[in-house]
Amino acid sequence: MAKDFPTRAENYSQWYNDLVIKADLAENSAVRGCMVIKPYGYAIWEKIQAALDKKFKDTGHSNAYFPIFIPKSFFSKEASHVQGFAKECAVVTHYRLKNSPDGKGIVVDEDAKLEEELIIRPTSETIIWDTYRTWIQSYRDLPILINQWANVVRWEMRTRLFLRTAEFLWQEGHTAHATMEEAVKESETMLDVYADFAENWMALPVIRGTKSEGERFAGAIETYAIEALMQDGKALQAGTSHFLGQNFAKAFDVKFLNKENQLDYVWATSWGVSTRLMGALIMAHSDDQGLVLPPRLAPVQVVIVPVFKNQEQLDLIAEKVIPIKKALELKGVSVKFDDRDTHKPGWKFSEYEFRGVPLRITVGPRDIEQGTVEIARRDTLEKETLQMRDIENKVIHLLDQIQSNLYERALSFRENNSHHVDTWEEFKDAIENKGGFVYAHWDGTRETEEKIKEETKATIRVIPLKNAQEAGKCIYSGKPSTQRVIFARAY
Amino acid sequence: MAKDFPTRAENYSQWYNDLVIKADLAENSAVRGCMVIKPYGYAIWEKIQAALDKKFKDTGHSNAYFPIFIPKSFFSKEASHVQGFAKECAVVTHYRLKNSPDGKGIVVDEDAKLEEELIIRPTSETIIWDTYRTWIQSYRDLPILINQWANVVRWEMRTRLFLRTAEFLWQEGHTAHATMEEAVKESETMLDVYADFAENWMALPVIRGTKSEGERFAGAIETYAIEALMQDGKALQAGTSHFLGQNFAKAFDVKFLNKENQLDYVWATSWGVSTRLMGALIMAHSDDQGLVLPPRLAPVQVVIVPVFKNQEQLDLIAEKVIPIKKALELKGVSVKFDDRDTHKPGWKFSEYEFRGVPLRITVGPRDIEQGTVEIARRDTLEKETLQMRDIENKVIHLLDQIQSNLYERALSFRENNSHHVDTWEEFKDAIENKGGFVYAHWDGTRETEEKIKEETKATIRVIPLKNAQEAGKCIYSGKPSTQRVIFARAY
Repeated sequence: MAKDFPTRAENYSQWYNDLVIKADLAENSAVRGCMVIKPYGYAIWEKIQAALDKKFKDTGHSNAYFPIFIPKSFFSKEASHVQGFAKECAVVTHYRLKNSPDGKGIVVDEDAKLEEELIIRPTSETIIWDTYRTWIQSYRDLPILINQWANVVRWEMRTRLFLRTAEFLWQEGHTAHATMEEAVKESETMLDVYADFAENWMALPVIRGTKSEGERFAGAIETYAIEALMQDGKALQAGTSHFLGQNFAKAFDVKFLNKENQLDYVWATSWGVSTRLMGALIMAHSDDQGLVLPPRLAPVQVVIVPVFKNQEQLDLIAEKVIPIKKALELKGVSVKFDDRDTHKPGWKFSEYEFRGVPLRITVGPRDIEQGTVEIARRDTLEKETLQMRDIENKVIHLLDQIQSNLYERALSFRENNSHHVDTWEEFKDAIENKGGFVYAHWDGTRETEEKIKEETKATIRVIPLKNAQEAGKCIYSGKPSTQRVIFARAY
Repeated sequence: MAKDFPTRAENYSQWYNDLVIKADLAENSAVRGCMVIKPYGYAIWEKIQAALDKKFKDTGHSNAYFPIFIPKSFFSKEASHVQGFAKECAVVTHYRLKNSPDGKGIVVDEDAKLEEELIIRPTSETIIWDTYRTWIQSYRDLPILINQWANVVRWEMRTRLFLRTAEFLWQEGHTAHATMEEAVKESETMLDVYADFAENWMALPVIRGTKSEGERFAGAIETYAIEALMQDGKALQAGTSHFLGQNFAKAFDVKFLNKENQLDYVWATSWGVSTRLMGALIMAHSDDQGLVLPPRLAPVQVVIVPVFKNQEQLDLIAEKVIPIKKALELKGVSVKFDDRDTHKPGWKFSEYEFRGVPLRITVGPRDIEQGTVEIARRDTLEKETLQMRDIENKVIHLLDQIQSNLYERALSFRENNSHHVDTWEEFKDAIENKGGFVYAHWDGTRETEEKIKEETKATIRVIPLKNAQEAGKCIYSGKPSTQRVIFARAY
């Protein structure tokens, strides 16, 4: 299968779109801005979900489910939240259709108008905190540590598969605590969970930090984020964790009796990652030959392709290969033996290469005679001939090696594309001509941040945690600054 | 924790509602007809999902995700589907809110009216078949075997937690085939998957059959269903699988080149179960002491309650109990050791009994001296004293026994509440005064079925598969009939 698509250098944006579609990950649907996630793409998402879900449970969280609808008035209750979220939303106004009077098709039944419009959740803080009010009376009811896997809708005007779609899938954690300290600790813990997942499952190095005021979640006191660098030099926010203070408790009147028997407002956090991670995964590692997947998230980790001219040869190969497949599966490796006679080996090679299967094993009649196999790595495209008896250990070893190689490769890329600049000219040059993460001094004001964004389209991605303190001057205003922050153009 | 709620005999309906709420399974939300599924209820749903998902994958299906929105015009494309589904729907008409001109709250932005209204999926045949059109050209692209886990919305006027809610969670399988035979076989296979799950996981005996024309899915040629009997003598449809013929392929123009190189319409099936299964699970087994859960779906299978007066005693107990807990967990048993000193043992006993934990193990200081434990079964409420060294094997054995006992108990109940009647008087008496499954002759017409429903509120639940053929007369019309069908009042 020849996949006709541009290289990254030719047209990065087109390369990404073509890759998503031609690798059968997702496609645009009949509904503007909404995507269909196809089985191969969804299988990767299921692996992401499983790994994250286990981490959430290991850190004491339970899953639950809250309604998709939010009464319109709920949005107005938290002042900054309404500015951030009650804009581009899907609004349900009616609850019935009827046959058209002219007999052609169906129309909205105007008699079935809702008294109060319902918004399809763009995020669920409001409906959840309205619910928590009845769950929390005393400190004994705290903490509440809940996560929800759900679909959400934000009516984006310019959409891109996985990166920005009107409907997307995500998880949103919503926790309630008796003290500020505990809530802050929770939001930091969940940032660590995300960073650990990004680095060890997605093979994606990330920088942990806090957002500037201008980039903060609507309703948060502090937004923590992990930020990754894509191959085109643009940043991608891969997950956020918010310390919400008592803002939502106050908006929804959620009070509790503390240990001192006094009424106080509850402290909150929320945190989430979405199918956007699929976009990050694809863009971070893939190459001009197609998708490259880290072994821990690859639906198929090893494909075995037999080379045969007749059934007899295939039978001989299968006899050797099926025990290897079973042995690997017992060790938790997912293996596909593609013994179809409808497609030639060469077609299969390029197909699995394009789909990012980490390891390919090829076995032909001569291999059977000699007790060998050929093994090919997707990350480096290197091939090697092995003794068949060594294959199990070698596969386990190579999968580990590919996982860490992808991480190291992405880390080197990030390091090679991180720039320290000290003047406005250097800054503009770096943003415009080099891309990547640009470390620069900033005077800490929202005003300066906005002007920089206007003039260069670069935003403050993150103020790194445990950031080195150093005296300097803001690259834009020249005012004194105590630390560098990371600027970049971003997805 | 004294749970004040009526017995089943006093008020079955109230018993159910109270049980759902007081056992922390679900509650009504601020949005009319929508529920919040609480962590304990959701944990059961996750067990249901995991078991079903594995069965779907074992039978060759993959998961995918399609948009929640369906353009209004799509519903009009399949004639009977529009009658069945395009009525009580949530309709999205606008995509933006704005600040109210009077400065109070937010209002719908009338400038942001959609050209075509979007319906929140009540089921996804239309959007999926619109998508399949571009995926299918030749018989080589078939079969497509896809499942989706999703939320759906049907604007029900009278709702009940889990049994009938405006929004609910479900899975919907949508498959495409080259031949009618293959599609029929698929719908039968999935009915078997559902029946196997109901009987072996939910401990719920079901009758497999087909629906009468009047009860068929809107757009189906044949609807297969599994039907279960609840403790109040009402039937509950626990899952359906539809053979859709070429109806949706014709409506959405999905053609393929068959092996004979001729264009033909694609054959379809769809099948689904929902959070309604939670209602069936609760109603089938629970008793006046609270929830009763089959071990295979219980989030906590064994709870260990220590009886202690001081930390020293607790330490001695923990020393013996923690290795037992670990050993059971290694065997796949989920065990909770509730060593809280904030609640008394008696409170914990009634709490876990109420929540339906299948086995409770109690260990006190005397047990430590004598090397014994007390074990209590939730299904029979029997207690037994055991040697500590026997505990592992005994737990495994008892969990199996509880699972099969629940099934047998439900089966006996169904058998004791199945009635064969031959006259209209007997029929009315059975429906009105006895409840249960009523086996009766029916003339096979939709007209008779509807009259029986009008007069007795009983519907044909199912025409059993491999039904015994016997000559008889329709209990209503007196016309000849070749088989008995199952009538009941139903949820």
